[in-house]
Amino acid sequence: MNITSVDYLLKHTCEWLKGTGPNSDIVISSRIRLARNLEKLPFSHWASKKQEKEAMDILEKGVLDVDLVKTGAYIRMSEIEDVDRQFLLERHLISREHMVHPEYKSVAIADKEIMSIMVNEEDHLRVQVMQSGFNLQECWRIANRLDESLHKRLKFAFSADWGYLTACPTNTGTGLRASVMLHLPALVMTKQVSRVIQAISKLGMTARGLYGEGTEAEGNFFQISNQITLGTPEDDVIDNLERVIRQVIGHEENARKTLMKQNREVLQDKIARSNGIIRSAYIVNTKETLSLLSMVRLGVDMGLITDIDRRAVNELLILTQPAHLQKIEGRQLSSAQRDVKRANLIRRRLEGR
Amino acid sequence: MNITSVDYLLKHTCEWLKGTGPNSDIVISSRIRLARNLEKLPFSHWASKKQEKEAMDILEKGVLDVDLVKTGAYIRMSEIEDVDRQFLLERHLISREHMVHPEYKSVAIADKEIMSIMVNEEDHLRVQVMQSGFNLQECWRIANRLDESLHKRLKFAFSADWGYLTACPTNTGTGLRASVMLHLPALVMTKQVSRVIQAISKLGMTARGLYGEGTEAEGNFFQISNQITLGTPEDDVIDNLERVIRQVIGHEENARKTLMKQNREVLQDKIARSNGIIRSAYIVNTKETLSLLSMVRLGVDMGLITDIDRRAVNELLILTQPAHLQKIEGRQLSSAQRDVKRANLIRRRLEGR
Repeated sequence: MNITSVDYLLKHTCEWLKGTGPNSDIVISSRIRLARNLEKLPFSHWASKKQEKEAMDILEKGVLDVDLVKTGAYIRMSEIEDVDRQFLLERHLISREHMVHPEYKSVAIADKEIMSIMVNEEDHLRVQVMQSGFNLQECWRIANRLDESLHKRLKFAFSADWGYLTACPTNTGTGLRASVMLHLPALVMTKQVSRVIQAISKLGMTARGLYGEGTEAEGNFFQISNQITLGTPEDDVIDNLERVIRQVIGHEENARKTLMKQNREVLQDKIARSNGIIRSAYIVNTKETLSLLSMVRLGVDMGLITDIDRRAVNELLILTQPAHLQKIEGRQLSSAQRDVKRANLIRRRLEGR
Repeated sequence: MNITSVDYLLKHTCEWLKGTGPNSDIVISSRIRLARNLEKLPFSHWASKKQEKEAMDILEKGVLDVDLVKTGAYIRMSEIEDVDRQFLLERHLISREHMVHPEYKSVAIADKEIMSIMVNEEDHLRVQVMQSGFNLQECWRIANRLDESLHKRLKFAFSADWGYLTACPTNTGTGLRASVMLHLPALVMTKQVSRVIQAISKLGMTARGLYGEGTEAEGNFFQISNQITLGTPEDDVIDNLERVIRQVIGHEENARKTLMKQNREVLQDKIARSNGIIRSAYIVNTKETLSLLSMVRLGVDMGLITDIDRRAVNELLILTQPAHLQKIEGRQLSSAQRDVKRANLIRRRLEGR
């Protein structure tokens, strides 16, 4: 379904934010991304406008023919407003690149936002599959099926020596990036997180913030992904990442237990104050929102807050972002206006209204 | 009634904290204090132990014979614990001097703590009468009656030229100090308060903190009193102070209106956050408590908080002090333990339990 408005997405929230699935007290979501490029055309960055258009025509035809996509939405970046593109970015459905340079770019979104395919990103196709909780296997299963369907309709650049060819050599090989969004407040509070991240990077993994590359970890949210795409089969990459993530989860669990044992009142105080503030404030900015929501989520996850469910907290992580607030309100809002609307939205949501 | 424990005071709260009376949205309480000294004996500071005892014997006899006092309690400072003396200080019933040097000192407390008479303070007698709200006239009426009763039983040092003689010359003359405890959050927030205090001091008044001389204004609470005791009759002193206080009240009212008009959301946010924090926290120290209670009181006074009454907030100002927490708990508490008990007490009280 070709659409020119993202408004339909406002009616529900992303399936991968539902707060269920394995280890969902620590893992927000899992993601698999595949990079694919057409055989006969230059990579997007080096393509002329004409070649970009040509690629888009071919890709659109192929992508829209896939059954999984047919039931979803197809959106050309140039046909929607700035705020809509930012909205898609906030929902993790497109990249910053897609938002900033909309020409000859598009995205297919399907299966309650579990699946998105970006056309003419850095690579011709970026296939992304997300799941709630620690569930890379399910992401990989769906991504693989999607990849097979696309293979039947499009000819991808592939070398027997190198594997899939990509615009940036760091993706060459499998073209696969597996990543997991973790909530690590106890490791941050006990000042162990930088040590953990250092250890991760020695194992060929990398840690980033909520919105991927170049973003800082805010509100204790960390996205951990594989660095290696060359010379290791997909299953091994995923297995490796899973093993590392399981260790990080173990460390976070231990840190939570230690805090509860040695610093229970300090922890309770921090969580209860955050809960009190976020349910009361009339003005709150994005940064403070993330750190307050982080503490509230920890409270929910540790059973210290029982009248909020995890899904509500997860959804607020997205709904409180600038473009979301403006879409919900149906008009442009200044930063100061957003801070007021954000506080209002949070208050209402946490009271279940 | 001669008593050796202050525990009976725990059962109720001071009448002057009830949060009613004229201008009680801005004025916490009014107070009249009279300094009187025995004719034939040296001032307490210059007296030998023997003379101090002699003074105490005479004063006790006279004070305990007054009808108004008979129904109350009489407590010798040397017969109670350190924590009990601190408790009396926190309730504004005795001075720091009385707490620190208990020998040959005592206090009579009557009429639901509206009235207290300190024996062998800096002056032989310090008669204090307090009222809720802006009500100096009523304080003066009661103090005057008490003074007359005492005059019938004790011979006070009085000079036709100077009036009542006192240990410190700043009290000589009427021996009268009239003071009003004001809550001036809007003047503080709009940064007008230092200008107001400067103007006051030019008019012969002085501004201090919650616990009188030498204490800083915390939580936006200011105690304003007359400086002049010599050459001006009592009624004029009280009239002058009343006139000045009425002006300060007017300024505070204007500042509140201005905040509501120009900065409503910022004000609401500040008040709502303080309310959210104080009802949620598990650890809170005295200083933060005062500033949070100040904002909650402002919320109550401006109709922004409707589920708490003013008396509850006023009472918490006293109940959350260190000795009160220890008396309530019935045992000594470290500073860290008090911070936890304080938060707990506030949470329970504000939930009406």
